[in-house]
Amino acid sequence: MAQKQSSGVIAPLTKSEGADTLLVIGADIGGTSLRMGLADGTGAMLARWTCSTVDTRDSEGVVRLMREGADALLLEAGVTPDSVCAIAAGAPGITDADSGVVIATSYLMGWRDVPLRAMLESEFGVPASVDNDVNLAAMGEQRAGVAQGERDFVFLSIGTGIGAGIVLNGTVHRGSIWTAGEIGYMLVPGAEEAPVERGQPGALEAIVGGEGIKSEWKKRWSRELTTLPLEATATQIFDEALASNAMAQEVLQLAGRTLAYAIYNMSLILNSRLFVLGGSVGVHPALGDAVRQQLQMRRARIQPELMHSALGRDAQLIGAIYLALETANRRTSEGVS
Amino acid sequence: MAQKQSSGVIAPLTKSEGADTLLVIGADIGGTSLRMGLADGTGAMLARWTCSTVDTRDSEGVVRLMREGADALLLEAGVTPDSVCAIAAGAPGITDADSGVVIATSYLMGWRDVPLRAMLESEFGVPASVDNDVNLAAMGEQRAGVAQGERDFVFLSIGTGIGAGIVLNGTVHRGSIWTAGEIGYMLVPGAEEAPVERGQPGALEAIVGGEGIKSEWKKRWSRELTTLPLEATATQIFDEALASNAMAQEVLQLAGRTLAYAIYNMSLILNSRLFVLGGSVGVHPALGDAVRQQLQMRRARIQPELMHSALGRDAQLIGAIYLALETANRRTSEGVS
Repeated sequence: MAQKQSSGVIAPLTKSEGADTLLVIGADIGGTSLRMGLADGTGAMLARWTCSTVDTRDSEGVVRLMREGADALLLEAGVTPDSVCAIAAGAPGITDADSGVVIATSYLMGWRDVPLRAMLESEFGVPASVDNDVNLAAMGEQRAGVAQGERDFVFLSIGTGIGAGIVLNGTVHRGSIWTAGEIGYMLVPGAEEAPVERGQPGALEAIVGGEGIKSEWKKRWSRELTTLPLEATATQIFDEALASNAMAQEVLQLAGRTLAYAIYNMSLILNSRLFVLGGSVGVHPALGDAVRQQLQMRRARIQPELMHSALGRDAQLIGAIYLALETANRRTSEGVS
Repeated sequence: MAQKQSSGVIAPLTKSEGADTLLVIGADIGGTSLRMGLADGTGAMLARWTCSTVDTRDSEGVVRLMREGADALLLEAGVTPDSVCAIAAGAPGITDADSGVVIATSYLMGWRDVPLRAMLESEFGVPASVDNDVNLAAMGEQRAGVAQGERDFVFLSIGTGIGAGIVLNGTVHRGSIWTAGEIGYMLVPGAEEAPVERGQPGALEAIVGGEGIKSEWKKRWSRELTTLPLEATATQIFDEALASNAMAQEVLQLAGRTLAYAIYNMSLILNSRLFVLGGSVGVHPALGDAVRQQLQMRRARIQPELMHSALGRDAQLIGAIYLALETANRRTSEGVS
């Protein structure tokens, strides 16, 4: 990894004398945190680093944080900058993976047409790649998680919002303008039919996303019915449902039923057998059970199989590491230097 | 085309002396009619033939009808049987295009695991291919209709029921067990949430399919409100809506809104830009307008573009002809003789 070059020229990929192995850096850029990992050629993580992005929304600031993180990773692993041969990042928004441009993120980050790949190549002097974070999570699960060897599956990331990484015939399906899998606006029974204003949660995520679950809880909340506070998180609410609280059960069942409808629709359209539940809300066992129960009731010709993410919070980061490895290989074989 | 060979051996592809050109036969097997066409190497149709399938549901009977049709086509075009070098058929059900087996059709035909390709090769002594009829319609529109040159689009066939032919990256997406696009059961706002019994119309087609539209009409029908009979067809009802009848308008708007929800959902998941409306109900201009109006109201980031099928009732048949041409080329290049 070369020092920053104002010319933006990409540094040679040749290993420095004494470097034991070629390494890559993966990054998962989120609305609340930036998570980075340094990995070897097999994808094994040698060091990891995390920091908050709550006060850093602009892309230049995020790239500066990534420089900080990269330096910390190299220090921790005791390796020199020039042993790093590629970097890849997952961005929380619609991303043109060919040009490496983040077309749009949610109103929280507010990115529009950010040439992130070029910025990373300029900052780090090595080949870079950029993709949507949920697509990377799907790749992570396919390479190192529960979807190993699967050629057709859907990774569902359910956190504050909801998004799908769709793998068809072995590769991520991104769509004609990179928005495939943006299912937060899906219209299912029980969802709000009126068009949603920009910046507001979509019809599906208003029920199934973390914020939606909290808001359904608030609608029903009464001090007499629970010891949980009005401001409980989705995970706390699902824990309360597991402890047989009726109000929490109601919120869980609503989310489970609605998510089951969305999965059922995707299964009809795509004929994907496997759905992997990920994201901070998606990995909760109570949600998986509620969805499974609903799907079984439908007696579909093809019963979708539900699995929980094996990589959890690391799915995006591990996907980014594999993308960085592919980037290193591709660029090397293409003769980029 | 050789005469029927009891051994099932495929006849040589060589042209007979005097045959001007190599020809193919395409067939569209439907629940009410069998439509066949004889075409030359450019896909141009030289002769066509149609008969009713109302009294012929079993696969052996359908193949016998196809023999009748093929003989009639050859007679009409004045060509010899050995100028036909391949045949392809679209079947109204879940079809394994690799093995040429029709896995299941609707309860009307009741086919289960019918080895149609093998039956056709045995009957006609030439290489045969089989696919789902809606997938063939999509291929027809892509080769010779409104979707020429489109690499990502969805063909929606709306007749008695509803099905989608999904083209991604230039080829039909069939799914892990050949059921991709079976969207009749899609769950959208306003659709019946309760699981549907086998053999009953799915939640979506109960509103948008021809039978669903007729049933919504019957629910509202009153002699005072329309001159159309209680037993009107979907097309008549839509014509009545165009003539500003309020009751027919209500049925049209319900179908249009519900279909718009389904298209919107597919557009979110697949990020396909173009949707082609086909099938006897789908080609009605009033339905297209009602759907378009609903989609525009949603102000989606990606506004799906709606077009009406250019090939109309012939879409499946023309798709079958192109599949037969591909079959002839593929088998020839593979050295099958």
